[in-house]
Amino acid sequence: MASSLISRQLTLSLQKNHRLSAAGCRYVSKAAAKTQVEYDYDGPLMKTAVPGPRSQELTKQLGEIQNVGAINFFCNYEESRGNYLVDVDGNRMLDIYTQISSIPIGYNHPALLKLMTNPNNLSTFVNRPALGILPPENFPDKITESLLSVAPSGMSRVQTMACGSCSNENAFKAMFIWYKNKERGYSSPSDAELNSCMINQAPGCPDLSILSFMGGFHGRTMGCLATTHSKVIHKLDVPSFDWPIASFPRLQYPLEEFTRENAQEEARCLEEVEDLIVRWRQKGKPVAGIVVEPIQAEGGDNHASPDFFRKLRSVARKHGCAFHVDEVQTGGGCTGKFWAHEHWAMDDPADIVSFSKKLLSGGYFYRDELQADKGYRIFNTWMGDPSKNLFLAEVLNVIRRENLLEEVVRSGKALLNGLYELQTQYPSVLSRARGQGTFCAVDVRDAETRDRILVQTRDKGVLLGGCGDSSIRFRPALIFKEYHAHILLNILNDVLAQNK
Amino acid sequence: MASSLISRQLTLSLQKNHRLSAAGCRYVSKAAAKTQVEYDYDGPLMKTAVPGPRSQELTKQLGEIQNVGAINFFCNYEESRGNYLVDVDGNRMLDIYTQISSIPIGYNHPALLKLMTNPNNLSTFVNRPALGILPPENFPDKITESLLSVAPSGMSRVQTMACGSCSNENAFKAMFIWYKNKERGYSSPSDAELNSCMINQAPGCPDLSILSFMGGFHGRTMGCLATTHSKVIHKLDVPSFDWPIASFPRLQYPLEEFTRENAQEEARCLEEVEDLIVRWRQKGKPVAGIVVEPIQAEGGDNHASPDFFRKLRSVARKHGCAFHVDEVQTGGGCTGKFWAHEHWAMDDPADIVSFSKKLLSGGYFYRDELQADKGYRIFNTWMGDPSKNLFLAEVLNVIRRENLLEEVVRSGKALLNGLYELQTQYPSVLSRARGQGTFCAVDVRDAETRDRILVQTRDKGVLLGGCGDSSIRFRPALIFKEYHAHILLNILNDVLAQNK
Repeated sequence: MASSLISRQLTLSLQKNHRLSAAGCRYVSKAAAKTQVEYDYDGPLMKTAVPGPRSQELTKQLGEIQNVGAINFFCNYEESRGNYLVDVDGNRMLDIYTQISSIPIGYNHPALLKLMTNPNNLSTFVNRPALGILPPENFPDKITESLLSVAPSGMSRVQTMACGSCSNENAFKAMFIWYKNKERGYSSPSDAELNSCMINQAPGCPDLSILSFMGGFHGRTMGCLATTHSKVIHKLDVPSFDWPIASFPRLQYPLEEFTRENAQEEARCLEEVEDLIVRWRQKGKPVAGIVVEPIQAEGGDNHASPDFFRKLRSVARKHGCAFHVDEVQTGGGCTGKFWAHEHWAMDDPADIVSFSKKLLSGGYFYRDELQADKGYRIFNTWMGDPSKNLFLAEVLNVIRRENLLEEVVRSGKALLNGLYELQTQYPSVLSRARGQGTFCAVDVRDAETRDRILVQTRDKGVLLGGCGDSSIRFRPALIFKEYHAHILLNILNDVLAQNK
Repeated sequence: MASSLISRQLTLSLQKNHRLSAAGCRYVSKAAAKTQVEYDYDGPLMKTAVPGPRSQELTKQLGEIQNVGAINFFCNYEESRGNYLVDVDGNRMLDIYTQISSIPIGYNHPALLKLMTNPNNLSTFVNRPALGILPPENFPDKITESLLSVAPSGMSRVQTMACGSCSNENAFKAMFIWYKNKERGYSSPSDAELNSCMINQAPGCPDLSILSFMGGFHGRTMGCLATTHSKVIHKLDVPSFDWPIASFPRLQYPLEEFTRENAQEEARCLEEVEDLIVRWRQKGKPVAGIVVEPIQAEGGDNHASPDFFRKLRSVARKHGCAFHVDEVQTGGGCTGKFWAHEHWAMDDPADIVSFSKKLLSGGYFYRDELQADKGYRIFNTWMGDPSKNLFLAEVLNVIRRENLLEEVVRSGKALLNGLYELQTQYPSVLSRARGQGTFCAVDVRDAETRDRILVQTRDKGVLLGGCGDSSIRFRPALIFKEYHAHILLNILNDVLAQNK
């Protein structure tokens, strides 16, 4: 495998370009000089259908141990490099799904491997602390160097957590605590509150709610799940809360061509939000917070305008609700800015911003007043994992050193333009191409065709994911370059030609 | 610091024994040959009060970033070894709290450090997979070697998760899914179920409940929190579910002296459980599962007899409820068996056993029929962390190689006997000494005295934790030996002498 690694600054060989153009597509890179470092491969290489025989064998083995209904295939992570995921049958795929959008700078990045060999770091991996009570000496410096260096505007505080769901669960709790403290004028809780909370009853466990959006996804633990409304499979059979759910704008794309229609749709949704806040207050279940994704990801890559979010933020403020922006999938640079909410250009975009995935562990930033008033109110054993912060600090260094956000803008433009052209070329198959940075998606005419396209592109060496009812989502790593977009678009073009 | 490391097989020096006996206590080890490996220190060494000046400075620094109300002090994990935690002021403490019971074989165990330097393992740390869709090649073998090698009786299936709360949340979901599938005869869900679940309403999000126990602790995310009833600070201001809560037996100790009284108390609680199951079914919120800790830990180290748990398991079966044993704190060997439920001596102890902490990441074992019927029903991005499984496999090797469960029985006996003697010596301060293995506790006359004793023992070099209203809990690592128990008991004796 190592022999197929490409060397630094190597431009795409003519032979390679020739092979790609032979597929009859115009997306071959013209000028993109290759700046990829040597840990990337030079293209997909397929040896078997996917899953291949070894993956099938392992799936059977794992099936004796747990449900394998969602397993795609088994991976050889040792041999995976950069944008390429290698499977156990030796197939090498351009990875545009990146472990559900959670690999920031590709596989086996040399900077991260190097960090592992530094003896000063060993202890951080071997001794996982209970961060909330006994943090390591370098913890304040490390989160200042990593997380706080990318803190959203207006926030200088962050609480680490171990995963996306725990981040949102605790962000919700922070909003409930904030809301109740405000309500009781920051005085001590009453005996009635203290006694009733131990048996799950009001007033101690109050009937507060979180307003969420249809199509939203915020995780699958029970608090999160009450705000998740993207797919039946997540929610069926699990008890939930009677919390308000607003329509999320269903926009027409390209956004710039439908400004008036989209503005009307957004106004309708904002009105619904206010109406729900009033109704739930009347029902005795006041809305403590609003949670929203900057782009609904799992629910189908639904966008809304900066204007929508600015107005939503105002609605929250007007009604005394906290405003929680869930950047678990959108955060980390894939929209061309480190946080998707930066596209709203606000000094005070949110009260809480939660993250996970590309940030390698979870947590949430928050405005000062959202801090719980006492220790142990927001708490668990580990409260994150310093070994992940160690990696994150290095990931951020790489992003800065290699100007990866600019790269994302550039390769994202190539990707989205390519999708526009493909949907013009295959109007009966593709529609509604949309995106910000490389965070792109396109709708397929139906779920069956979408699923078939995903399998066929995979068999040709490009790994993609679905989202929503019948969309394809593009979630490459931040080291995805223009020429990777062209490889992807060429193969997608071939597959679409078979599915006209 | 390195100069104070002791060498293998070194017996406690006479000088050391002399220093300890000078404190006027009878707990000095008589015969316990020292078999500790060289990574342990030879005793506590205190330089400042705790928290010392450096810890205070760092706490202030971290206070600008997050709530620090629960911070005890900052640690130097590089210098910590074996049973000893070193803080940033150079204080070295015998650690009987082990990061809230989550360090299985002490700090910087050579076997774990060695694992970090194996180049074959690098990729596992650097490339965190989405385990539910794209597991690494060695995943089935690795969980067979690690988790399945300690699977509870009757279980050959395990689902990994990243932390204790996620483990319990997903275990609850597995019970809800199982219950509903059973109820609809394993046929497809109705349209009404599919449509209503998307908006959090019945029948799709059914009014099912989990029965838990007063004093229980199962985590702090919203589903878990509805079954947690140990302390007000966890629950206040967070909305919850109307789920049934039974009394947990309040036994008299030593258990063998109060057999009749305790049996009566347990019968009362079991009757209450059945009564609640019937009442909640009548309320239209049937109990899908019962969740219980083998020893209520956070809630005050409350024990119940094997007979109680065997009968509780039968009650669950009789009423068609799943039986979930939460071994997050009790699991991993600290009771002298790998799982605390092994003390019940049952072939079929539970439907679900959840774990985390000493097992380094989370998850749950389950009986075949508790497996969700489809992929993506129990799912999240990471579904655990293979790098933690790597450590766990090695931890299990060490436990077996060094016969650590036998050591736990031995040192636990020394610890509990010492506590019995101390409570005889200080009857106005201590009572209800109790324990299994090294998982021990003792009650102090009031919370204020308990808290003072914790501070004073810490200042003398022993780190302990509280639990319940006014108990001290002992949670050493599995490498805690008899002579460590004697060091601890000597110091505790000194402190108690000041608090008579």
